[in-house]
Amino acid sequence: MSLANRDLITTDDLSNQEIEAVFALADEMSGSMKEQSNLCQGKIMASLFFEPSTRTRLSFETAMHRLGGGVISVVEMENTSLAKGESIADMARVVGSYADIIVIRHPWEGAAKVVANYADVPVINAGDGGHEHPTQTLCDLYTLKKERRTLEGLKIALWGDLKYGRTVHSLAYALAKFGANIHFRPSPGLEMPKHVIRKLTTEYAGILEKYGNLKEGGEEGLFPLDAIYITPSGPHQLANIPSVGIQIELEKGVDALYVTRLQKERLEPAAEGKESEKSYPVVDKKLLKEKGFRETIVMHPLPRVDELAYEIDADPRSMYFKQAARGVPIRMALIALLLGAKEVDIPQGKGMAFTQKRDYPVYKRDTGVRCLNKNCVSKQETETRYIKPVFQIVANDPLTLRCIYCEHEIHPQYIASSKWHQGIVEKKRYYSANSFMLGRIQPENLIIFGSEDEALARGFKPGKRAF
Amino acid sequence: MSLANRDLITTDDLSNQEIEAVFALADEMSGSMKEQSNLCQGKIMASLFFEPSTRTRLSFETAMHRLGGGVISVVEMENTSLAKGESIADMARVVGSYADIIVIRHPWEGAAKVVANYADVPVINAGDGGHEHPTQTLCDLYTLKKERRTLEGLKIALWGDLKYGRTVHSLAYALAKFGANIHFRPSPGLEMPKHVIRKLTTEYAGILEKYGNLKEGGEEGLFPLDAIYITPSGPHQLANIPSVGIQIELEKGVDALYVTRLQKERLEPAAEGKESEKSYPVVDKKLLKEKGFRETIVMHPLPRVDELAYEIDADPRSMYFKQAARGVPIRMALIALLLGAKEVDIPQGKGMAFTQKRDYPVYKRDTGVRCLNKNCVSKQETETRYIKPVFQIVANDPLTLRCIYCEHEIHPQYIASSKWHQGIVEKKRYYSANSFMLGRIQPENLIIFGSEDEALARGFKPGKRAF
Amino acid sequence: MSLANRDLITTDDLSNQEIEAVFALADEMSGSMKEQSNLCQGKIMASLFFEPSTRTRLSFETAMHRLGGGVISVVEMENTSLAKGESIADMARVVGSYADIIVIRHPWEGAAKVVANYADVPVINAGDGGHEHPTQTLCDLYTLKKERRTLEGLKIALWGDLKYGRTVHSLAYALAKFGANIHFRPSPGLEMPKHVIRKLTTEYAGILEKYGNLKEGGEEGLFPLDAIYITPSGPHQLANIPSVGIQIELEKGVDALYVTRLQKERLEPAAEGKESEKSYPVVDKKLLKEKGFRETIVMHPLPRVDELAYEIDADPRSMYFKQAARGVPIRMALIALLLGAKEVDIPQGKGMAFTQKRDYPVYKRDTGVRCLNKNCVSKQETETRYIKPVFQIVANDPLTLRCIYCEHEIHPQYIASSKWHQGIVEKKRYYSANSFMLGRIQPENLIIFGSEDEALARGFKPGKRAF
Repeated sequence: MSLANRDLITTDDLSNQEIEAVFALADEMSGSMKEQSNLCQGKIMASLFFEPSTRTRLSFETAMHRLGGGVISVVEMENTSLAKGESIADMARVVGSYADIIVIRHPWEGAAKVVANYADVPVINAGDGGHEHPTQTLCDLYTLKKERRTLEGLKIALWGDLKYGRTVHSLAYALAKFGANIHFRPSPGLEMPKHVIRKLTTEYAGILEKYGNLKEGGEEGLFPLDAIYITPSGPHQLANIPSVGIQIELEKGVDALYVTRLQKERLEPAAEGKESEKSYPVVDKKLLKEKGFRETIVMHPLPRVDELAYEIDADPRSMYFKQAARGVPIRMALIALLLGAKEVDIPQGKGMAFTQKRDYPVYKRDTGVRCLNKNCVSKQETETRYIKPVFQIVANDPLTLRCIYCEHEIHPQYIASSKWHQGIVEKKRYYSANSFMLGRIQPENLIIFGSEDEALARGFKPGKRAF
Repeated sequence: MSLANRDLITTDDLSNQEIEAVFALADEMSGSMKEQSNLCQGKIMASLFFEPSTRTRLSFETAMHRLGGGVISVVEMENTSLAKGESIADMARVVGSYADIIVIRHPWEGAAKVVANYADVPVINAGDGGHEHPTQTLCDLYTLKKERRTLEGLKIALWGDLKYGRTVHSLAYALAKFGANIHFRPSPGLEMPKHVIRKLTTEYAGILEKYGNLKEGGEEGLFPLDAIYITPSGPHQLANIPSVGIQIELEKGVDALYVTRLQKERLEPAAEGKESEKSYPVVDKKLLKEKGFRETIVMHPLPRVDELAYEIDADPRSMYFKQAARGVPIRMALIALLLGAKEVDIPQGKGMAFTQKRDYPVYKRDTGVRCLNKNCVSKQETETRYIKPVFQIVANDPLTLRCIYCEHEIHPQYIASSKWHQGIVEKKRYYSANSFMLGRIQPENLIIFGSEDEALARGFKPGKRAF
Repeated sequence: MSLANRDLITTDDLSNQEIEAVFALADEMSGSMKEQSNLCQGKIMASLFFEPSTRTRLSFETAMHRLGGGVISVVEMENTSLAKGESIADMARVVGSYADIIVIRHPWEGAAKVVANYADVPVINAGDGGHEHPTQTLCDLYTLKKERRTLEGLKIALWGDLKYGRTVHSLAYALAKFGANIHFRPSPGLEMPKHVIRKLTTEYAGILEKYGNLKEGGEEGLFPLDAIYITPSGPHQLANIPSVGIQIELEKGVDALYVTRLQKERLEPAAEGKESEKSYPVVDKKLLKEKGFRETIVMHPLPRVDELAYEIDADPRSMYFKQAARGVPIRMALIALLLGAKEVDIPQGKGMAFTQKRDYPVYKRDTGVRCLNKNCVSKQETETRYIKPVFQIVANDPLTLRCIYCEHEIHPQYIASSKWHQGIVEKKRYYSANSFMLGRIQPENLIIFGSEDEALARGFKPGKRAF
């Protein structure tokens, strides 16, 4: 199988089987680092970091050097042509004509996708704002797999800031895809956002059990639990058992604690930060003495602040430094594959997905519908010159559009049909998106308005029946 | 022919024949990229960027990597020893003892020349303030040549900000040198500066026809025209025909539109910026539909802002991304030649210059004459420790000195002679530089004062006859 | 001999013989640069510069490229994960799992030692605040040795800012270790700090003669002299002769003038800066005309400001640019040795040390004793999570503890013993550190308090006899 010329923008860009293939190649490469040193000779990686990240950048650059390739780097925003008002599309086209592969980190959500659309070379997303950071997720999965052999049926606790931590959202989807169960242990007030929960329960085939006993301490179980996501491949009896059963099950322990730091820089207002810091749960020696953690590995995407006590660094269950170190072979494998310097066999019978990618209808009409995420690449002054808003229609009740760039969702309130000769819908009338009319209009005829004014401005009048 | 150990500070540092040789090597290299990957192995390029420029820096670094060499980089001013008050001469000597070739971008005009003077290795100017950016010019000429086979007799329209755009000044000289005709289409208020016009008409052998019909719209021709520079090699009848003839000729179209962005960062005051932005001419689909542009290629040094509509990106006449991509082979050829890793044959009968470099007399006396360009390297506090002002005497009417660093020109008002025993000039008298006395004093005896006070302070008195 | 996997944090980490071996390898390498270009192929150097330094960084990166290795770089503080509150220990562990060798410059004193403690690869200190910069010292010694064949018995004048110049402190110790004599010629007010003097006279076996005739001009000798350090290997008669004899000796000249710039950025308050700038001694043509300087080489770690006149740059005695250039082979030799890519023979009979490293008792108890250097790595908020203060007990009169990180010294005032059953010391009593009790308590039983309150808080009462 060849992955040559593919992009990696979200974890979903790779099938489970392809991910297993990356892991297999990473295994092979870590066993023979020296033999890789000519693999990408003469190739150049552009390492474009428009947002701080020592670790990720150095890891990618190390990977390319270990493959024998060259690296050109951009480390900040101020010193680039972007400061002169250039669009990232133009930047992508030019850098894509210099380098053989582009790695980009950018503060705007969806930026990596735009770069991939315009550059003629493979693009790897090294983090686009709060959206995705797929190679981090690959490293996380790889460590779980190395330490536990398979991901299927594992119990993984996600710990800490589940609200702002981008890596933890991607990881949750990936775990679901690989058939793992997820235990949510957020710091109070930093629970998993609704859209992540919704995606987990609609696009992935598992069940979500809600507890919300964060205040009551760990009396009933191993730790305070907000919710559990139960994979369809999990012990079948569990999904049918009442909550108390899960708590009992939980006492047997989890396979991994995935800890994240408080994303202070994203908190607002400052008060939220102070409060969150105080109540933020810490993993320390005492906690790890609990019976249920006896065989639990402790993971963390790093950098840590105070949520992981230094005293557990020497504990054999602490995997966070190994996890970071494994970023190099994973990224080596990925770069070599995307550059076509390596091909891999798909492991047979492995890596079946516990979910299926859905093909949602796409909405492209220029009818005033805009993404509401102010950090979305489609909202930036320099980018509106060429980016047209495009959405997937992911749900009807309520009508939900997902921005194809940043994947934020919006709920427009007014609809109409482009065809009215059917006798079903009236000519040039608009309706509430919550009315029965939504079901009557064919997706290909659907017009969606960003606001009532938008509908009126285009000569539509309120429909009689559906408000 | 070997270019080993040469510097490239201004486009004039290379003869037309040498430029053709660089193009020939660039052609050869783009056809066999892989074969170049050992050419400069073991060599190191210092990439010193003391001013923002992603594109140029990445292009140079890519070129060196493609040649198999190593790169050491400096990306900004604050984090360097320059911040400790070091002169660029010292920096040049030290970095020149580390690296095999230096590429420098610096905000001070003339800085690259100083670096070349002090470093023991070849130096390439990657932009020194508003002065020169010769490799950009090479890329521009290279694209014209690739698309049109020859530069001789071409009609090139320079479009937009002709006042502050450094690349457009260098390009104008280079086009003249290669025998192309130039049509000036500035944004109102951003016309070609006088010193550029003067240089074009005195040092290059062509004729300049002035129109200045920028306000009247494009009614009379293809686009509003400020002036035309007609090369001596152009259709001979043209140079003798009245203006209207040129307009008619123009309707046959131009070979290339060379568009530049508004150099906002150089505008002062802010008001100028606002006004300029509004009236700035845009190249879009509609414009390119004009008959005269049917075979016109559209070029731009990038980054663009709004002057090139995205809608023409897919048009086969749009060359700006190709133009950027060609920066890599051009810079590869140049680096390989200056490092002596390649030699080239001078193409016979090609590249005759349409101008001749003049040897102006040089003025070096320490008599208070200073460059008036506050951005000139010779005016900077750290550099005055060792830089002595030196000028070329480029004209007598009025007396015009050109700073050898930044090439800005000044018009000193007072002169004297160092020899008075000839009976022609009086002892220790000074005269007006506009008087007949200027003609009487031998260049080697000429004393020029920065001010009348300077003359008096040195014990000179006003001459009787010449004021 | 192999130096593989060793760290270089202070000059003392290498024995004199090992330093001679580095020099021998540097000699060999400068003679055959091309042959080194595969020596470290496939190896990666992390070049972590959290404080400005073009010269040092580029010199290290050049060295690694010349050895055929790859480089990953960090150039400033703001754009790194450290800005997210990460400790340097974590950073060290992660980067140490990417790269094969780490070069670090950091503003905190002792930071390089912490990095060395936590990274699994060799670490080279490229400057840690005002503490050490050992490769600069190696370059200095190397130039002295190249120009004078041996260091033993040389007379070296240290010139300028001897107070804040970190390189000059390290150099003084190194010169003493190699048996050179040192003449101190500070700018008034910028004399060698007491702790340096103390170390020179206690840990190194030489004698210090004090003059302090800085105000009186150079009438009595070659230049105003503050003090001379006379090595035990020096002309033996000298050490026994009264001061005037030294002045006579001095008139015979010095072997090298080691000039340093005013470390403006470390001066406080601003007034001190202004005053120091005015009286700062300058080395110029006139000075070098003195008979005593006829064979004196002029050295400077660069960057210079005004203390070295440009007019002497062409003088064959000026060695500062050669000194900088030699940084590359020295660093190549060092990197190759630490990576185990080269081994060297210890030159027989060479490099005997004029001092012996002492093994001081170590104080590790958690009794409130803290380093008082606010720039010490052990005092930083992010680092106190895991760094425990540790001191060497370097003197008893007064009791002097030296921080093992930044090497600053403190003089705690209160002591006690952990054992009192001996009948000699009373139970749970504390005493003045200046009392006779200090001599009675075995080092392994010694308790030292940061303050009297600390002693009281731990349940100790004032001892009766010893205040």
